[in-house]
Amino acid sequence: MRARAPASSANLGPGFDVLALALALYVDVEIVPAARLSLRSEGEGADLAQDDQHLAARVATTVCGHDRFAITIRSEIPLGRGLGSSAALAVAAAAAAGADDPFAVAVGYEGHVENAAASVHGGLISAALLDTGPVARPLPLDPGLVFVVLVPDRQLPTEEARVALDAEVSRADAVFNLSRMGLLLAGFADRRLFVGAAGDDRLHQPQRASLFPEAPELLARLLKAGALVSCWSGAGPSLLGICDGLTAAAQVREAGEAALESVGVPGRALVLSPDLEGLIVQR
Amino acid sequence: MRARAPASSANLGPGFDVLALALALYVDVEIVPAARLSLRSEGEGADLAQDDQHLAARVATTVCGHDRFAITIRSEIPLGRGLGSSAALAVAAAAAAGADDPFAVAVGYEGHVENAAASVHGGLISAALLDTGPVARPLPLDPGLVFVVLVPDRQLPTEEARVALDAEVSRADAVFNLSRMGLLLAGFADRRLFVGAAGDDRLHQPQRASLFPEAPELLARLLKAGALVSCWSGAGPSLLGICDGLTAAAQVREAGEAALESVGVPGRALVLSPDLEGLIVQR
Repeated sequence: MRARAPASSANLGPGFDVLALALALYVDVEIVPAARLSLRSEGEGADLAQDDQHLAARVATTVCGHDRFAITIRSEIPLGRGLGSSAALAVAAAAAAGADDPFAVAVGYEGHVENAAASVHGGLISAALLDTGPVARPLPLDPGLVFVVLVPDRQLPTEEARVALDAEVSRADAVFNLSRMGLLLAGFADRRLFVGAAGDDRLHQPQRASLFPEAPELLARLLKAGALVSCWSGAGPSLLGICDGLTAAAQVREAGEAALESVGVPGRALVLSPDLEGLIVQR
Repeated sequence: MRARAPASSANLGPGFDVLALALALYVDVEIVPAARLSLRSEGEGADLAQDDQHLAARVATTVCGHDRFAITIRSEIPLGRGLGSSAALAVAAAAAAGADDPFAVAVGYEGHVENAAASVHGGLISAALLDTGPVARPLPLDPGLVFVVLVPDRQLPTEEARVALDAEVSRADAVFNLSRMGLLLAGFADRRLFVGAAGDDRLHQPQRASLFPEAPELLARLLKAGALVSCWSGAGPSLLGICDGLTAAAQVREAGEAALESVGVPGRALVLSPDLEGLIVQR
C-alpha cells in the first residue's frame, strides 16, 4: 500500500503543543511484501541510515507484526526544521502498513499529537491527549490564507528546544497565550479579523530565542513585509508568516529571503498553501 | 439616550479571562438631561443604593463630564452570579451617556474585557488587553446552540472568587487549557464536533470549587442530562450547559433544576439563546 501525508506547522505562536496547520509539502510511503526488510529513501531524509531503526521501519514493523516488507519513502519535508516531518512520516508509514488508526499509531511513536493530527486530517486542527486517547478537531480556516515558511539550513532538534522550557509559568502568561490563541483562531476563521498580536506567545518562543537569536528580528521583518501574523513553526527553526493571498505572500517571501541573508542565516523561503486533504491512502 | 446590552457568560471552561458569550438577558439604561443626578432602577439590582456611587452613575458622570441627568435602569441580569451584569451595565450606561467607545469605557470601569466585549458585540468573542488597548474579535458560533444557565440564589462576588487563584501554574495546566479551548472553539463553530472534555479547565474551576462545593456534581449532572459541555459561567456561581437545540436544552434545564434541588442549592435554571446583536443604542 501507499500513503501520502502532509507536513505541518505546530504551535502557531500561542497555541503551544495544541494547534497545527497542514502544509502542502508531502512525504509518500510505499510498503510492499518482501522476503525481508529493506528501506529506500529519496528526497529529504535520504541521508538517514536506511535500516531497521528508521522511524518508518519501526512503525511498519509494529503495525504488521513482522518485518517482511520493502519500504520506499519519497519526502519533500525538511527534517528537524519544525515542519512535522517525523509525524508525517509516522502517519504515512502507519497507513501504508495497513494501520486502522494511523493517528493513534503515529502519536504513540512520535508524541506530537498536534502534528500527527494535522498530517491525518489536513487543514487547521486543535489536538489534545485526553484520558480516552488522542483527539483532534478541525477549526475554521479562511481559504484566502497563504503561508510563507522561512527554512534555515540549520537544524534545531525538538528535544533540545524543549529543554529550555520551565515546568512552571505565571498565570498571567498562561492567560496571555489563551487570549492570543482566541484572537488567532478568529483570524484563521476570517482573515479580515487578524491582528498582528495574535501570533504573540509567552510559553515557548521567548524561552527558545537563545537557541535561535535571529528569530525575533526575522519574525519582525515578516510582519513588516505584510504578514498578518508571524511565529515559530513548531519548535523551530523554521518561521511562519501568515499572509492574505498569493500577492502578499510573494512579497513576504522575498522580504524573508532578504532578511535571512541580512542576519546571516543561510536558508530559503517557501510559499505554501494549506493542505486540506490530510492523509491519502492508495490501496 | 437609551441603550441596551446583553448579559454574558465568560471563561466558558478553559477560556479563562478570554472567552465570553453574549446571552439573551438584557439591561436597558436611559439617560436624559435633568437639573441634578437621579437614578431609578427596576428589576435585578433594584435593591442597590440608587445614588451617585451606583456604577451607572459613575460611568455616566465620567462620560458626560457632569452629573446633570436622570438615569433609568431596567435589568433582567442577576447580579453577582457570573453573568456579566456589571460589564453589561457599564456598557449600556456608557452608550446611553453618549460615549464614542463604550467598550473602552466599560473596560476602564469594570475590568472584565471579555464580558464587556460580549456585551458590545454579541455572539461569541475572544478578548485581550493589548499594549494598544482592549481588543475583541468574534468567533464562529453554530446557530443551533442553546444554553442552559443554572442560577443559584447565592452570590459569589468575583473578587472573592479571584482570591483563590495562585499566581503560578504548571506548564502542563497551561497547555491543558489551551488544548481544551481549541476543542471548545471547534465545537462552537460546528456543534457536531463538541467533545465533553472541551469544557474542562485547570486554571480556575478546581481552585474555586471550595467556594461552591456542589459545582462539580451539578456540572456532571448537566452533562449526563445531555449537555454537550458544562462549565462555570464567569467566576460563578452560575453554571452553564451548552446544548444542541431547544429540545435538548429543555431536558437539561429540567435535570438542572432537579440537580439544584437534590444537592440543596436554591436557584433556578434558564434556557437562553445567544444574543447576536450586542449593544443597541437608540438616539
